[in-house]
Amino acid sequence: MSRIEIVDLKQNVLDDNDEMANKTRDKLKEKGVFLLNLMSSPGAGKTTTLVKTINLMKDKYSIGVMEADIDSDVDAIKIAETGAKSIQLHTGGMCHLDATMTEQGLDALGTDGLDLVVLENVGNLVCPAEFDTGATKNACIVSVPEGDDKPLKYPLMFQVADVVIVNKTDVLPYFDFDMEAFKNNVELRHPGIPVIPISAKTGEGMDKLVEWLEQQISR
Amino acid sequence: MSRIEIVDLKQNVLDDNDEMANKTRDKLKEKGVFLLNLMSSPGAGKTTTLVKTINLMKDKYSIGVMEADIDSDVDAIKIAETGAKSIQLHTGGMCHLDATMTEQGLDALGTDGLDLVVLENVGNLVCPAEFDTGATKNACIVSVPEGDDKPLKYPLMFQVADVVIVNKTDVLPYFDFDMEAFKNNVELRHPGIPVIPISAKTGEGMDKLVEWLEQQISR
Repeated sequence: MSRIEIVDLKQNVLDDNDEMANKTRDKLKEKGVFLLNLMSSPGAGKTTTLVKTINLMKDKYSIGVMEADIDSDVDAIKIAETGAKSIQLHTGGMCHLDATMTEQGLDALGTDGLDLVVLENVGNLVCPAEFDTGATKNACIVSVPEGDDKPLKYPLMFQVADVVIVNKTDVLPYFDFDMEAFKNNVELRHPGIPVIPISAKTGEGMDKLVEWLEQQISR
Repeated sequence: MSRIEIVDLKQNVLDDNDEMANKTRDKLKEKGVFLLNLMSSPGAGKTTTLVKTINLMKDKYSIGVMEADIDSDVDAIKIAETGAKSIQLHTGGMCHLDATMTEQGLDALGTDGLDLVVLENVGNLVCPAEFDTGATKNACIVSVPEGDDKPLKYPLMFQVADVVIVNKTDVLPYFDFDMEAFKNNVELRHPGIPVIPISAKTGEGMDKLVEWLEQQISR
């Protein structure tokens, strides 16, 4: 197993989070680094999706990953196996990442020469949506077993998302998940944002996700 | 569809949460009301499990339900259809319930004559674990699609849980979920607590859950 760098994050309650986030975003833009903030419920498949995405993009892009977790480093180890530059961020019980914590992560990772950095946020559909991390774009993953009503129950997450990924489409036959109803629920919260169904397990739809990411990075 | 009472909760940051929680617990004990705090990730099946549990227990017990949600009343409507006394609590964006909010819910529900009250907490595996609601016992549901590593990644939830329910066992053949590994991970976090595998969809294992609840209520 790879030896993973673990960074213990400290929250800074004094700074203005939005100001910090805008500074981070500007700085990354200047350096040509695209930062994707990846959010979802626990177990929706953020890490598996990320591993597949890295494997599809790593020949063309330099990719770095910050794996945020309350505890453990199981995800960072999986990411390191792809060859991507990766670090584990420990939030010390915190339920989300803010702009200051993200900045600490970016400093520890080192962004020189990277095209794409992915921040895998804490598995939580509520709190991460409340804090601008400074990411260029926000992605939210919902998995089929969670149900098609999630945009009704967790409105803010879908309002701040720039793209919604529906993972685990391979198990659609075993769940009462209505894709059209889900898309309508997303549309209610955030009109016009793309919804990309994928199965990170089988690879189905991954080309569409990579296409979306490449379009964003090239902007 | 039933007309559901919706209560907008206010957080009270001045009171000591643990003190409030202990007061609530004592008061409920005196009245002979058992309060179960039901926590899980979004989409783990709290409401479905609750509907099945109520249907199995309602002939013997008077049951009340408080459905907490950031927005929407889809869950409270499903519960009301069982005939249980139910209200919808809106947290106004808050990611968890504290003791003061629970007290407001109990007042609005009215606990006279009830044997069992279930608080369906906000779908979140992080924040609800940090706040004692005043419940007699805490239950945590993890569903098979979320993966067997959740106790490693969300330690506090499993430390505060008195019972862990594993839902969606009907889809075990389609996921890499190792029940023994999961039980070992729970044991690491909270030695000795029961782990009850169920399928709220098919009814498998529901007898074991009802048995555990009846034992707790009769204490």
